[in-house]
Amino acid sequence: MSVVIDGLQYANWSEKVFREMRAGGVDAVHVTISYHENFRETVLNFEAWNRWFERFPELIFQGFTGDDVRRAKDTGRTAIFFGFQNPSPIEDDIGLVEILHRLGARFMQLSYNNQSLLATGCYEAEDPGITRMGRQVIKEMNRVGLVVDMSHSADRSTIEAADISTRPITITHANLHSWQPALRNKRDDVIRAVTQNGGMMGFSLYPHHLKDKSDCTVDSFCEMIARAAETFGVAHFGIGSDLCQDQPDSIVEWMRTGRWTKEIDYGEGSASAPGFPPQPVWFRDNRDFGNIREGLARTGFDATEVDALMGGNWLRFFDENFTPADAPPDH
Amino acid sequence: MSVVIDGLQYANWSEKVFREMRAGGVDAVHVTISYHENFRETVLNFEAWNRWFERFPELIFQGFTGDDVRRAKDTGRTAIFFGFQNPSPIEDDIGLVEILHRLGARFMQLSYNNQSLLATGCYEAEDPGITRMGRQVIKEMNRVGLVVDMSHSADRSTIEAADISTRPITITHANLHSWQPALRNKRDDVIRAVTQNGGMMGFSLYPHHLKDKSDCTVDSFCEMIARAAETFGVAHFGIGSDLCQDQPDSIVEWMRTGRWTKEIDYGEGSASAPGFPPQPVWFRDNRDFGNIREGLARTGFDATEVDALMGGNWLRFFDENFTPADAPPDH
Repeated sequence: MSVVIDGLQYANWSEKVFREMRAGGVDAVHVTISYHENFRETVLNFEAWNRWFERFPELIFQGFTGDDVRRAKDTGRTAIFFGFQNPSPIEDDIGLVEILHRLGARFMQLSYNNQSLLATGCYEAEDPGITRMGRQVIKEMNRVGLVVDMSHSADRSTIEAADISTRPITITHANLHSWQPALRNKRDDVIRAVTQNGGMMGFSLYPHHLKDKSDCTVDSFCEMIARAAETFGVAHFGIGSDLCQDQPDSIVEWMRTGRWTKEIDYGEGSASAPGFPPQPVWFRDNRDFGNIREGLARTGFDATEVDALMGGNWLRFFDENFTPADAPPDH
Repeated sequence: MSVVIDGLQYANWSEKVFREMRAGGVDAVHVTISYHENFRETVLNFEAWNRWFERFPELIFQGFTGDDVRRAKDTGRTAIFFGFQNPSPIEDDIGLVEILHRLGARFMQLSYNNQSLLATGCYEAEDPGITRMGRQVIKEMNRVGLVVDMSHSADRSTIEAADISTRPITITHANLHSWQPALRNKRDDVIRAVTQNGGMMGFSLYPHHLKDKSDCTVDSFCEMIARAAETFGVAHFGIGSDLCQDQPDSIVEWMRTGRWTKEIDYGEGSASAPGFPPQPVWFRDNRDFGNIREGLARTGFDATEVDALMGGNWLRFFDENFTPADAPPDH
């Protein structure tokens, strides 16, 4: 079964966006439902999604396992999987890992740019690696089937997480640092640590992560993917678009500053360009996954490889990593 | 399949109690995990149970559907189903109904002795019936498969809940008022409203609900059941022991006073007997369900009826009422 899976989005959700997912043939999306929210606030976000699911059952439903991606494909809908870009939803309480997994959380970043209780973020000057609590939480995430995501973490913390975790981990949304030397893009030794332990990386369409930013060409993007596949193996990659569709610029400010600072922090932006950058013309929104598929084919991937990169690899990863360690795999 | 199900317990949980459940052949128990707790406190109680499940997987596991009772029977364990004696876990947020159902809540009382946001408790002087929010919450509970329990509610509220609810409701733990005229026992018109809409009532072994209290005989208890079955139909009854095993008296004070009063309220007790009363000798704990089974047979129930009363009726009710209204029944 050929499926399309996006490894990360944070849109301003609406019926319009859900219909565009259908128009683009997107079978499953990992959506961020918390950036800096605490547990109770995160539960309110689950509640808001329950209202979306109740309103648009013909377009979307909540995904829990890989089989839900197949069910989405079979019924012409999009399965929505939840994740957090920060461990703030578990606060200081390891018991919330299992609670949030039961509610449907499937990915959690151990840090978001800054130092967290668990790991170091990619904007910190120093990276002392995975903390005491971080080691315990990784073990608990492994037990219940909540996937470690190190997209916004610092290099040492990421490499340590890949080694400590007994199950594969992810970088859901980033690109090769050697292609575009952005702070958030990943160096080869980091990608190697993640992929050689069975992990997955999703390639980002966020302009700050792209060579030539908003002017990046689809062929340049696909050539980067070819280089990554050649170096680390095609089985370890997919898409994680980081699409933040229809969001006002106040949202990127919230992502960057949350409640941790009273001063503005421009992150990957700048004082002269503080907002969301424009998407490249070939990936405006969920309707444009076909352009990536065509670009991958042009780059020389065969049909099996294109299917794997567009969603097959993520589906295998979902099957193997969303259920408890002591349960048989979902599929 | 013959199963034993207890419709309500609130023990001081321990390995000892779980082993006694196995010794008594108890396949499933509805356990109270909140009396007055708010949402976050209730989640901490779910977390504490997750630790019990992790520690004693050979004795207990969390039950979600009727099939989990069959799985418990097949694997020689006890399935633990969760419920609340007060709607305090949903606070003033109807969205928490679905969240808590996802976490495994299967019963919720609309009030506990006092007026709640939803309904009136049985100790209030006036009972204005189901509130505006109560009507909305019953509808939402019906939708997701969270069962309305009116054990500690006032009569008018209970009858209205039975009428408003589109799915059967319960009185998980109480006896016939005509047998023992305790405030918590139920009058015939209340039982009729619940049972004629397909609802279930569990008979209580809490001494304050028993004729002659701690000195009640098993034959008197079973004769009351025979009278109820004759009047309302045997299919609507089971056991809801209200067993509060190994609890210190401070717990019954917490049940009665929570945080709602600074003064002592003795509830069904008194200043001279404020604590838990002693259990009748024939029902000390989970090991003694056999005494009830034998008593029911002596009273004249045939084997099919005894099986129904000991758990078969609850199992049918679990099958039909724990899953969303728009989903096919579990079995």
